[in-house]
Amino acid sequence: MTLAALARRLRERELSPVEAVTEALERIERLDPALNAFLSVRAEEALAEAAGLGGAGWRGPLHGVPVAVKDVIDVAGARTTAASRILADSVAEHDATVVARLRRAGAVVVGKLNTHEFAFGATTTSPHFGPARNPWDRERICGGSSGGSGAAAAARLVPGTLGTDTAGSVRIPACLCGVTGLRPSIGRVPNRGVVPVSWTFDTVGPIARSAEDCALLLDAIAGHDHADPSTLPAPVPDYVGGLSSGVAGLRIGVVSHLLEGAVDPRVVAAVEAALGELAALGARVERVDAGFLRETEVVTQLVMLPEAADAHLPWLRTRLADYGADVRARLLAGLLLPATALVTGQRARRRILGEARRLFEQHDLLAAPAMPVTAPRIGEEVVSAGAERLPYRLALMPFNSPWTCLGLPAASVPCGFVDGLPVGLALAGRRLAEETVLRAAHAFQQVTDWHELRPPVPV
Amino acid sequence: MTLAALARRLRERELSPVEAVTEALERIERLDPALNAFLSVRAEEALAEAAGLGGAGWRGPLHGVPVAVKDVIDVAGARTTAASRILADSVAEHDATVVARLRRAGAVVVGKLNTHEFAFGATTTSPHFGPARNPWDRERICGGSSGGSGAAAAARLVPGTLGTDTAGSVRIPACLCGVTGLRPSIGRVPNRGVVPVSWTFDTVGPIARSAEDCALLLDAIAGHDHADPSTLPAPVPDYVGGLSSGVAGLRIGVVSHLLEGAVDPRVVAAVEAALGELAALGARVERVDAGFLRETEVVTQLVMLPEAADAHLPWLRTRLADYGADVRARLLAGLLLPATALVTGQRARRRILGEARRLFEQHDLLAAPAMPVTAPRIGEEVVSAGAERLPYRLALMPFNSPWTCLGLPAASVPCGFVDGLPVGLALAGRRLAEETVLRAAHAFQQVTDWHELRPPVPV
Repeated sequence: MTLAALARRLRERELSPVEAVTEALERIERLDPALNAFLSVRAEEALAEAAGLGGAGWRGPLHGVPVAVKDVIDVAGARTTAASRILADSVAEHDATVVARLRRAGAVVVGKLNTHEFAFGATTTSPHFGPARNPWDRERICGGSSGGSGAAAAARLVPGTLGTDTAGSVRIPACLCGVTGLRPSIGRVPNRGVVPVSWTFDTVGPIARSAEDCALLLDAIAGHDHADPSTLPAPVPDYVGGLSSGVAGLRIGVVSHLLEGAVDPRVVAAVEAALGELAALGARVERVDAGFLRETEVVTQLVMLPEAADAHLPWLRTRLADYGADVRARLLAGLLLPATALVTGQRARRRILGEARRLFEQHDLLAAPAMPVTAPRIGEEVVSAGAERLPYRLALMPFNSPWTCLGLPAASVPCGFVDGLPVGLALAGRRLAEETVLRAAHAFQQVTDWHELRPPVPV
Repeated sequence: MTLAALARRLRERELSPVEAVTEALERIERLDPALNAFLSVRAEEALAEAAGLGGAGWRGPLHGVPVAVKDVIDVAGARTTAASRILADSVAEHDATVVARLRRAGAVVVGKLNTHEFAFGATTTSPHFGPARNPWDRERICGGSSGGSGAAAAARLVPGTLGTDTAGSVRIPACLCGVTGLRPSIGRVPNRGVVPVSWTFDTVGPIARSAEDCALLLDAIAGHDHADPSTLPAPVPDYVGGLSSGVAGLRIGVVSHLLEGAVDPRVVAAVEAALGELAALGARVERVDAGFLRETEVVTQLVMLPEAADAHLPWLRTRLADYGADVRARLLAGLLLPATALVTGQRARRRILGEARRLFEQHDLLAAPAMPVTAPRIGEEVVSAGAERLPYRLALMPFNSPWTCLGLPAASVPCGFVDGLPVGLALAGRRLAEETVLRAAHAFQQVTDWHELRPPVPV
């Protein structure tokens, strides 16, 4: 059952919040040991909260819906470990704003999800808490950093999750796990109560089965918080309400160098087939030359690395040995950059933003493969297809950096399988135009069932 | 004659553009050798342009008005030296946008004004082109970096000038020379064709005798240029039209620690008297505690130094010996800063912006002394009053950094004399609220004559 379907049943009292939460907790207990999607489960608290909802009237669109959030997002009274040794015993005093908003909509948070250490990497293979495993092949990674969110949504441990995305951390696991994930625009969703990576790139975003599920979650969490300068005072549309408008007449530009740059040609074929479906639905799909987007790879690193190092400065002084080797190396790279490199990056970013604005005058959405490959094996940091071999981390940058650097909304939508592993279509929209992205993804999911396929149940 | 009065006479054809330009060129030839306000004079070109205007109809509000611009602002065919050895022979191909706009309003650019080397310092004592001298005492500095603009306006060499302001470069010389200068909001005036210092702080601004003169110049140069990302697409009011609204009911907050922090108590007395005048005109003047503004001193340096170093990177590699010692030292400081220091500064800047927004909910304007001292002697880098002695460069930072760091419009308005040297009142407004600043300055100048006093004519 999708989140949307479950929410409808809860609303119609065909199911009680306690029943819904109990079922989620049972699935987690039974299936998660093989997946390691959860870092902690708040079974007692969740059941008590569900019981409280049972007596009350209808709380909101997520009334009684069990959800889980990435373990960089604070839930009052629960640990926020960020899958790190440094925060292993850190208990949150307050809910993050997004968690408070989920609760206000009636959701019940059942636990905290695995992540790449400090959300600063794309494999979710924490040396401290162990790797999250891909439900489609448990020897493979879930992507990251919101790997636990991808695995939990794919294995139906919970119908909805929140992840965070700095340079791909919602889109990568959504793609590699065969679920739908949305990175909202910068400023759309409050970051208060979330462990930071990079203060100008960080966003919270939903990962769930369908675009409709993501729209329901985004409806709950989006919007200005006057006390939180990470948010913009822009009006928030009704995302679920906007889903049914279809894609007729929508101009979708397919970024040529990204389509052609996918490492695996079978990934390209799956994405091209998906674009054909969108064209058949009435979208005007055409190739677009956007070579300037390549610059976003370097620019994103120039900005993200020192921002992350800045956020970690106190711990870099006192806890250096407690980081995993890969995260430590990235933080030290940020520490060594001169300020002029960051200025160069920020100036380039403004120039690229201008070019992107002109591009979006011709196109409502830009499309590309969400990832150039399917999920690599755990411990395998190199991806290959045919003769080509390149580091996984470098392979994914061209596909994720553009929307990070530009601060634009971008989704990964399941659109096929290669060797039994999911492939995703990336759809990116104009600033604050999440509704267009979700509407196109929803239209696609009305005529395809990639997002409905179930991974094998672990034994 | 003020710029406004001259423009009226030109409009009414009581004076021809050639007569107005000829008079300016004669004053420059006679008086400038003692002041060194001009780095170059375009006598022939200016006279030819004035002659061209004579035949045509009325071009615009500055029809036939001789103006001069700081020598970091491009005038096609003229050198833009930035008072540097590095650019000593650099000839501009195109007009800066502000120069093109001045011309479109009918102004005639008669020459390029002295500046601190690369507009990166507050004394205008170029080791390459010699110091600009203060018309009120030629042994004293004009301030800077737009020192030539301050001197030229004060000595009536031209009725209007443009300077640039990064961390005080319009306000400091306006104050020390006893004229009116306005730093507009970031994004209000295009920077294209201006030698950069710090791309997030740089602004072009008018320096002239009166607020009305500054309003006339700002009317000509303000506004969005869709091809220039340094400008905002915000509507531009009629600045001259708004001048007459007065200050009745305007809430003016006097920043306590700045008023009390002025080095010279006679400066404080002059500023307090000016605030008394504004209160007598109906403004609600009250002390305000804004201690958080102190943080802007460090934050401004953290951002400005690496941005300036970034802008100079190519020359730092190849022309290091060609910089004056003080500018070189500042650029090297920027080069040595780690990127994390810049991130720390930028994060602090956002926090301070939030605090300032709350402060401006209670106040329409903030007021303070424009400078804590009067003009020091040339070569004297230490200011003193009574027992206190501190470096000139450090003394001015608390008074100029707040409005730089916040990107807000701020004017220096002549408000008295100490030992025959001018004192200025700083008035700062909300983002893009230049009209409020100018209106208050104009109301003050309607009942005072500090801006009309003439410096002694050099022999």
